[in-house]
Amino acid sequence: MKIALDAMGGDYAPATTIEGAIEALNEYKDLSIVLVGNEAEIKAALDERKCADLPITIHHASQVVEMDESPLAALRRKKDSSIRVAVDLVKSGDADSMVSAGNSGVVMATCLYVLGKLPRVERPAIAAIMPNLKDHFILLDAGANVDCKPLQLYQFAIMGDAYARFTFDMEKPRVGLLGIGEEDVKGNELTREAFKLIKSSHVNFIGNIEGQHIFSGDADVIVCDGFVGNIALKVSEGLAEAMGKMLKREIVEKVSGKIGALLFKDAFKSFKKKTDYSEYGGAPLLGISKPCFISHGRSSSKAIKNALKAAREFHRQGILDVITRELKEGLSGREAVAVKE
Amino acid sequence: MKIALDAMGGDYAPATTIEGAIEALNEYKDLSIVLVGNEAEIKAALDERKCADLPITIHHASQVVEMDESPLAALRRKKDSSIRVAVDLVKSGDADSMVSAGNSGVVMATCLYVLGKLPRVERPAIAAIMPNLKDHFILLDAGANVDCKPLQLYQFAIMGDAYARFTFDMEKPRVGLLGIGEEDVKGNELTREAFKLIKSSHVNFIGNIEGQHIFSGDADVIVCDGFVGNIALKVSEGLAEAMGKMLKREIVEKVSGKIGALLFKDAFKSFKKKTDYSEYGGAPLLGISKPCFISHGRSSSKAIKNALKAAREFHRQGILDVITRELKEGLSGREAVAVKE
Repeated sequence: MKIALDAMGGDYAPATTIEGAIEALNEYKDLSIVLVGNEAEIKAALDERKCADLPITIHHASQVVEMDESPLAALRRKKDSSIRVAVDLVKSGDADSMVSAGNSGVVMATCLYVLGKLPRVERPAIAAIMPNLKDHFILLDAGANVDCKPLQLYQFAIMGDAYARFTFDMEKPRVGLLGIGEEDVKGNELTREAFKLIKSSHVNFIGNIEGQHIFSGDADVIVCDGFVGNIALKVSEGLAEAMGKMLKREIVEKVSGKIGALLFKDAFKSFKKKTDYSEYGGAPLLGISKPCFISHGRSSSKAIKNALKAAREFHRQGILDVITRELKEGLSGREAVAVKE
Repeated sequence: MKIALDAMGGDYAPATTIEGAIEALNEYKDLSIVLVGNEAEIKAALDERKCADLPITIHHASQVVEMDESPLAALRRKKDSSIRVAVDLVKSGDADSMVSAGNSGVVMATCLYVLGKLPRVERPAIAAIMPNLKDHFILLDAGANVDCKPLQLYQFAIMGDAYARFTFDMEKPRVGLLGIGEEDVKGNELTREAFKLIKSSHVNFIGNIEGQHIFSGDADVIVCDGFVGNIALKVSEGLAEAMGKMLKREIVEKVSGKIGALLFKDAFKSFKKKTDYSEYGGAPLLGISKPCFISHGRSSSKAIKNALKAAREFHRQGILDVITRELKEGLSGREAVAVKE
């Protein structure tokens, strides 16, 4: 299978994206990669690395989308951006899937515009995998839709459930709704309505999950709107970083410096590995008609490799067909209104 | 000054609440406390502790509100609960302020019902103090209002600013709006409208603060709706706990057990102190006509002591008068609509 990789996306591109591509190709022999972006730059980077025998091709794209560019502006003015061209390659069938660590709003808008949604999908969602005390869980929507309707959250639950079944290889993922208070009457207008809809679905719904329990390992899939999801994700990221810094400061102050640092190096390393986003690679845009993945802007080569791995698995398992079937069997807009009432 | 303390509120009541009251009275000589709750239980607990010379009185209340009880049910059926009686004491002028670690939804509803709001306040907010990398910040609303309007967030900004000026003793607290994306056009419908209103106010508005930056120390006051605020607060609490556990596990596995534990005991202790909610005590219900404080359900005696300390400061500084004046000078509902347009 062939993946189009936005070589210019991410804070450390193209060096890290190319490095990640090489790592992935060395590991997965059924994979080939099209690097999309500035041909001269990519060629120079490839020449530095011995990878002439790997199934890598280059597809030139003359523009690069900036991290702060608006989706609308990018769609209008950057029709030859690395993001756009990578998505176009999926559209034309020249690639099976695409991965980008670039501006995620622009990736989402471009995928929506060029590839469109699966049948019946109201809005696609970003499905991020995050670590918890036991293993890991899927949070969706992690930031694509800032204002959601109950039916959208219901569909996120169905899509997230399918993704979890395949990705975590489990039969009945426990699906929770991110909320405040555990009873079904608690929450805001949106989550109270969504609660009823998800309860009516085939997924293994375990009800509301409060913020303090998302890392406890009680749920495999946690559903929320993109505003709340993004805040939860970013707050976690910020806190993990802040705690790391504070703890380091305390250790430097309290423990006789280097001895402590050495002793705890391994523990920290292993801890960091478990809480490091790059271990989890990319997040699929669930609901787009083809497999598209975004990766963190700060992606390391390993994060890119893991995003490529996730995209490969996603495509091999045919998750989009499963989602299409299950959404078709699920509620439509009119039925959803009836359930709510 | 006299504070009515809900002796029955919190997971470890009445032992810890009474312990906290004694600690506060030993420290603040201008303070007297009315313990509200089951007289026999309180008396027995007081008799165990030598505190006959402290300015403590008991006010009997025959009922206790459970942690999962709905505000409506409690207001209707528990008119002699420790929460209700403590609030009634403030209403009658027999106490200047009240503190409860009980069911926070019921405390808020009771305060609203019995004491009412300050003039022009749309909705009172829970203003929680949280630690960050540099010092600490105020997050409001931390969970009182799950569905908010832009004017309410605007008022939270004004109230939070006043609270920060006095509590942190600073002239121009930096007030941020919790959002996704730093530009003013980013966010959801609510935050985009609130952004314009807060920008028009007298506060030192620094714009949107993304989730990953709330702990960096860039803002002294962070404004959001109660649903998002509660999730941010609880996610932080859950993650801090999960990280602590994971790190401990790693250390036990990787470092030769006891040596490491001993070495790092001090560092952990100091770290824990900085991230411990109980250091920060209670959160005021900003916008209620009298000073009322809630404290975490899991409050230790130290958390109760710190809540009493915060309530004492709040009353001494006359923060409610300042808020009343500044809200009066601020936008009304009609003006807010004009700013938005």
